[in-house]
Amino acid sequence: MPELRKDPIVGRWVIISTERGKRPSDFPMETRKRDTKLCPFCPTNESSTPPEIMAFRDDGSKSNTPGWSLRVIPNKFPALRIEGDLNREGVGIFDKMNGVGAHEVIVETPDHTKDIIDLELKEIENVIWAYRDRINDLKRDPRFRHIMIFKNQGEAAGASLEHSHSQLIATPIVPIRILSEMEGAQKYYEFKERCIFCDIIRQELNDGTRIIVENDKFVALSPFAARFPFETWVMPKKHNPAFENMKPENIPFFAEILKDILGRLAVALNNPAYNYVIHSSPVEINHKDEYHWHLEIMPKLTKVAGFEWGTGFYINPTTPEDAALYLREIKKPQPVV
Amino acid sequence: MPELRKDPIVGRWVIISTERGKRPSDFPMETRKRDTKLCPFCPTNESSTPPEIMAFRDDGSKSNTPGWSLRVIPNKFPALRIEGDLNREGVGIFDKMNGVGAHEVIVETPDHTKDIIDLELKEIENVIWAYRDRINDLKRDPRFRHIMIFKNQGEAAGASLEHSHSQLIATPIVPIRILSEMEGAQKYYEFKERCIFCDIIRQELNDGTRIIVENDKFVALSPFAARFPFETWVMPKKHNPAFENMKPENIPFFAEILKDILGRLAVALNNPAYNYVIHSSPVEINHKDEYHWHLEIMPKLTKVAGFEWGTGFYINPTTPEDAALYLREIKKPQPVV
Repeated sequence: MPELRKDPIVGRWVIISTERGKRPSDFPMETRKRDTKLCPFCPTNESSTPPEIMAFRDDGSKSNTPGWSLRVIPNKFPALRIEGDLNREGVGIFDKMNGVGAHEVIVETPDHTKDIIDLELKEIENVIWAYRDRINDLKRDPRFRHIMIFKNQGEAAGASLEHSHSQLIATPIVPIRILSEMEGAQKYYEFKERCIFCDIIRQELNDGTRIIVENDKFVALSPFAARFPFETWVMPKKHNPAFENMKPENIPFFAEILKDILGRLAVALNNPAYNYVIHSSPVEINHKDEYHWHLEIMPKLTKVAGFEWGTGFYINPTTPEDAALYLREIKKPQPVV
Repeated sequence: MPELRKDPIVGRWVIISTERGKRPSDFPMETRKRDTKLCPFCPTNESSTPPEIMAFRDDGSKSNTPGWSLRVIPNKFPALRIEGDLNREGVGIFDKMNGVGAHEVIVETPDHTKDIIDLELKEIENVIWAYRDRINDLKRDPRFRHIMIFKNQGEAAGASLEHSHSQLIATPIVPIRILSEMEGAQKYYEFKERCIFCDIIRQELNDGTRIIVENDKFVALSPFAARFPFETWVMPKKHNPAFENMKPENIPFFAEILKDILGRLAVALNNPAYNYVIHSSPVEINHKDEYHWHLEIMPKLTKVAGFEWGTGFYINPTTPEDAALYLREIKKPQPVV
C-alpha cells in the first residue's frame, strides 16, 4: 500500500509509492518508445492494461477490445490505491495515512502517431467529456477531497509512454498548491468581495499585453508573474469554481482554445515537452464565490535549478509580455507532424 | 533592470530577468563544456569574469590573476542587480518591484577537473568560509531580506558551466518556501515551545531508520516526507537559526559530513546531477528560537511531472528508509572520477 506522509514543517503531503519501489540502479527511467504492436494503449493490446473504467465506443463493440475512440483505464502502476481506508496515524511527531486514491489514465486516441493537437475538435471535446465524467463519478467517493487532471507530453515532461494520454489523480487531501490558491483567493475576497481570478481576467482583457487568444467563453494568457518561459493559463471568462461544472455548451469553446494554444506553443517552441494541469476547486466547495478553475500549461524549456527548488522563487528568462506577443503573432497554428 | 513580480493569488515572487531575455529559438540551453582554455572559471581567464569580490590567494598574488584557491565573482548574467532602489509599485491589481539583489558565483577550486567531492577537507572548509563571509558582508545591506546559497551540479540540475561552483542570491523578499518553513516552525513553537527541527533530530536519532551518517556536530538523514528519491538533509545537532552564525570550530565537521554524504550519493547513484540549497533564517531574525538552518540535497533522478508542478504534491518512488539504508551501507565512499 502506498503511503501519504506529511512534511511536519510546511504541511506538504508526499506520496511514498512503494509500488514503484526503486533501487538506485533503476534510475533514470526513459520514455518507452514502443512500436504499436507493444504499446499497451494501442488497439488490440487492450488486455495488457487493467480493465477499462469507461470508453467511447463504436456501437456494438465490446469492452476491452478495439472499436473505441477514447479509453479510461486504471494506471497499471498506481501512485495511489483505490481500495482501503485512510487510517490516519502519527509516527512520533510525524503524520501519515494510507495512500488511498484513484489514479487513472485517459487514452485520448487509438492512433499511436497522434498528439492531442493533431486530433479533430470533436475528439478533443470527447477528451474533455471524459475528464468531466470521471471527476463527477469519483466525487461521490467521500474519501476524496481533490481530483486533479493533468497531462505530461514528452519525455522531458515526465511522460513514460509516448501514446497520447492524460491522467487523473483523486486524493484524500487537498494538495498544498491548491490550498495556497484557495487561501489567497479567500483573503482577496474578504477584502474586495470579488473573485481575484475574475478581476485578473477583467484587467488583462482591458490591458491586452498578456492576452494570447480568446473566444466567447475562454481566454488564454501569459500570467503576470509567470514562473516559466511561455507558461500559459486558459481561464473561463465567466466565474466557475470547478472544471466539472462547465456547461456542456461551453465544451466546444474549451476544446477550440486548447487546440489553438497548444498548436501555437508547438509552432513557436518546436513541439516542446509540456505539462498541463487543471486547477479546480476541492470536492467540497466551500469557496464557490472565491475560486475559479483554470488550466495551467507549462512548456519544459529550462531546467529548474537548485534555487527554484529550494525557494519556490523562480527565475523566468522571458517576459510574459514577450511570450504573449510571440504567441499572438502566430496566426495560423499548423499541426506539427 | 530585472523585475520582481508577485503572483497575486498565492503571493509567490518571480524574477523576470530581462537580462537573459530569451526568444523561443534560444531554448534549450546546454551546459557549456569548454576546455580549460576557454572556461571563464579557470586560472589565467580571470579577465573574462567581472572583477572578483573576494578570493583566497597565495601570498603576494594579485587580484584577478592566477594564484587563488577559491574565487568569488559577480554572476556575469545576474538574475538580480546590485544597484538601485526597490521602487515597489502596483500595476492595477498586480505588484512589482525592481529586481535588486546580489547574484554571486563561488568558484570552489581552480582545478577544472575536480568536483566538490574531489576536494580536500581543508578546501571544502574554505568553500564554507567563503559562503559565511559573503553572507555576513551582504547582511549589512538593508535592502536584502534573505540570502541563499545553492549549488547546481551537472546539466540535469541546471548547471550552465561545468567548472565546480556554487551560487549566492540575496533577495529583497523572503522566498515563499522559506516563509512557509518559518510559519510552520512558528506554529509548532507556539504549541510546544520547542523548535520543530530539534524535535525531528531528536526523534530521528532515537529511531535510526532514516539516519545516514552523523558526527559530533551534524547529522545527515532522509527526511520522513522526502519529495525526491535519495533527498538528504544535513542538520546541525545544536539549535542555530542561521548558517552564517555557525561557530568556526564547527566548520570542519560540516565540511566532513558534506564530503561524506555527497560521496555516498556519488557512489550509490553513479555520480548524479544534484542541487543543494542552504535553508537559513531570513536576515532579520525574528524567529531565532523556532527556525533551524539546514542543507537540503536533491539528486536529480526523476523527471518532475505535471502532477508535481501543479500541486506541490510529490510522488517519491523510493522510501526514505530504503534510501537511508542504502546510503548507510556504503562504508567507504570513493571519489568518483
